[in-house]
Amino acid sequence: MDVNRARGARDFLPPQMHERQGVLDAIRATFEEHGFEPLDTPAFERIEVLTGKYGDEGDKLIFKILARGEAGERGECDLALRYDLTVPLARVVAMHGELRMPFKRYHMGPVWRADRPARGRFREFWQCDGDILGTTEPTAEAECLAFAWRALDRMGFGDVVLRINDRRLLKALACHLGVEDREGELLIAVDKLDKIGRDGVSAELEGRGFGAGVVSGLWEVLEGDDDPLERMGRVLADQPATAGAVATLREVVRRAELLGVPSTSLSIDPTIARGLDYYTGPIWEGVIPGANMGSVCSGGRYDGLVGMFSGQDVPAVGISLGLDRLMVLREERGLAPKATSAPVLVTIYDSENPDPSIRVARAFREAGIGADLFPDARKLKAQLKYADQRGYPWIAIVGPRESEAGTVQIKEAATRAQHDLPVADAIATVRASLAR
Amino acid sequence: MDVNRARGARDFLPPQMHERQGVLDAIRATFEEHGFEPLDTPAFERIEVLTGKYGDEGDKLIFKILARGEAGERGECDLALRYDLTVPLARVVAMHGELRMPFKRYHMGPVWRADRPARGRFREFWQCDGDILGTTEPTAEAECLAFAWRALDRMGFGDVVLRINDRRLLKALACHLGVEDREGELLIAVDKLDKIGRDGVSAELEGRGFGAGVVSGLWEVLEGDDDPLERMGRVLADQPATAGAVATLREVVRRAELLGVPSTSLSIDPTIARGLDYYTGPIWEGVIPGANMGSVCSGGRYDGLVGMFSGQDVPAVGISLGLDRLMVLREERGLAPKATSAPVLVTIYDSENPDPSIRVARAFREAGIGADLFPDARKLKAQLKYADQRGYPWIAIVGPRESEAGTVQIKEAATRAQHDLPVADAIATVRASLAR
Repeated sequence: MDVNRARGARDFLPPQMHERQGVLDAIRATFEEHGFEPLDTPAFERIEVLTGKYGDEGDKLIFKILARGEAGERGECDLALRYDLTVPLARVVAMHGELRMPFKRYHMGPVWRADRPARGRFREFWQCDGDILGTTEPTAEAECLAFAWRALDRMGFGDVVLRINDRRLLKALACHLGVEDREGELLIAVDKLDKIGRDGVSAELEGRGFGAGVVSGLWEVLEGDDDPLERMGRVLADQPATAGAVATLREVVRRAELLGVPSTSLSIDPTIARGLDYYTGPIWEGVIPGANMGSVCSGGRYDGLVGMFSGQDVPAVGISLGLDRLMVLREERGLAPKATSAPVLVTIYDSENPDPSIRVARAFREAGIGADLFPDARKLKAQLKYADQRGYPWIAIVGPRESEAGTVQIKEAATRAQHDLPVADAIATVRASLAR
Repeated sequence: MDVNRARGARDFLPPQMHERQGVLDAIRATFEEHGFEPLDTPAFERIEVLTGKYGDEGDKLIFKILARGEAGERGECDLALRYDLTVPLARVVAMHGELRMPFKRYHMGPVWRADRPARGRFREFWQCDGDILGTTEPTAEAECLAFAWRALDRMGFGDVVLRINDRRLLKALACHLGVEDREGELLIAVDKLDKIGRDGVSAELEGRGFGAGVVSGLWEVLEGDDDPLERMGRVLADQPATAGAVATLREVVRRAELLGVPSTSLSIDPTIARGLDYYTGPIWEGVIPGANMGSVCSGGRYDGLVGMFSGQDVPAVGISLGLDRLMVLREERGLAPKATSAPVLVTIYDSENPDPSIRVARAFREAGIGADLFPDARKLKAQLKYADQRGYPWIAIVGPRESEAGTVQIKEAATRAQHDLPVADAIATVRASLAR
């Protein structure tokens, strides 16, 4: 029978799952360490909750669910798969008046977009979002950055550079250059700086009809060897929002450092624009030096969005980690996860008498060490091949001689060392190797 | 704005999430301890993978996803949300020839059914499934039972009774009674024994036209003070499958005991029928004594299903834990989870100078103790109220005096004890309380 998976979706077999779970556990532990509280929402929302929130292009990418019964026969849809975790958060805030502010929540789970599948682009993918609602203090931004750095450090990416800017400074820049009404176009071009370089951006802007004065004025802000925050403050001093935004960013960076983020991982970068319209204050993205990859995390302040259903004013700042990119980078850096759920495979020597092996598996498990028990008694050679293919760190063999003596033969895959030991000593040996 | 969640779906706010995560962590750890390997599949499958697998009633409950583009405009659906985790497993086995048997996998995740929502019945709910593929040895059944008991014991339900029967004995019973062609009807009535009692079942069978001899013959097998397995073996000795099924069940129970399941938690029960057609051998369900609730776990051998797409013969045995029922029971038993992600709330005394509080939060976190940092400096009283509402076990206060002395005031919510300590000592005090 010809059978296939849905396009753009993925199965995760055990080796990938061990890797993903390890990373998700690290992210979750870091969220909790920083006081973010867990939240979960359904995979689907009423369709009217989602439509109109992501622009025309986004609306086309929403997976719609056919209504049941007669409405469905007419082709009507009443539900849709969530497109991100932010609109569901806004819906939760509106529905649950008992939630007190400030509210720090994290949410890790899949979202669905009917994008054209491509390398690294999937129709089902996970987001790991943390958001702090109900406060405008820069401590909230600093907490998001501290969380991101610590989580990435745990995953082996302590060298991440968090590039920080402020939406208000980008707006001030457009005003300062006299192209306030074309801010979007300006930012789209600047956003390509990493890809097409300075000359490419200049050419694009000129092609779009921006004057030479605008382009040179732009580089006066974006470029320089001096402190970029000071430069923005000086050049954009004619704009009313500048001083406040500069002071906020300075405080965000200072508090993030106080929270333990190394200064080498914090970089004010006037060229960071972030695509999403809804940001209203500080914005950031994290990139891994030397990795040929976009940002691994991003976020910022978006004070207008979370209150959209509740009608209340709910200031918010958030951080999102990109799980799929982190998976690719970890593989590139050779950060290998555990190969199997349990470190020990207990083989079965005699199909007529599995009891000695069963007892050994139980003893390992009761000592807190996972043990797989080979479920039937095919030839020992086949069981050892199975252990080798799966990558069990340890193999236990209980033959008639061991069974009689109350011992077990344990074999370490990495060193090929083999020991015939009383069960308690075998457990101690494996435990010691796992602690190394 | 009127905003609502999808019908039959749930939001999980932080207190419920802490509880669910604790239970899911325990289940996952027990799966891994028993050598089950993790697997994940997409939320949706191609619609033809799911339709026709769950009977006519099941087909109606499948959530269908509208195709994108022109086909969608015609009302066509090409995808559907998964209805269980078993059909996706069969699809994975067919698609991934590299999977070697035996294959022990676990899968924990949501499934979706467009059932009419009712108390305790949801349209999105989680399944926690473990299956052992590729072997017919009763060790596989015993491993499923051992896993289930150990996981339930970890959750506070070591008193669970695993009621075990065999599909082949039910079939032999129908043959023995001369109603082989009406086995389904017979089992549906027997399945109601818990609800309607012996007289109710007899009345139902007579109402359906079963003869008095059939009904009395039935009770001869189902009732008695003697060992039920021996009784079934004796009364059903005229059927060819009986001896083998009895021997298998005896071995399943013996090996489960060897693996550590208390004999009080293992009960051969000739009345267990399990609804699903696809079981082919041993079947079981777990019930909590004294709880007014159906089974909290169930499973059995189903040798015909997993190979349905691959065309291969893939014997299989599985166990499924019912997360939602376990949640209800845990609440009834007062098994309380942690209240907050981080055990400490660090308050902010002076909005102009949050630095002392930031430093204390960092010190806790770097010592491996989660600390929430109140993000802004509303009145201390408001912060203490927030801590009380959320249920933080510890509150840290850093006023000007403490800041100068390098100390922190920590307050334990449970005892209202308050200490003014150097930061390192405060950390040690909280750590000691968490270890208790």
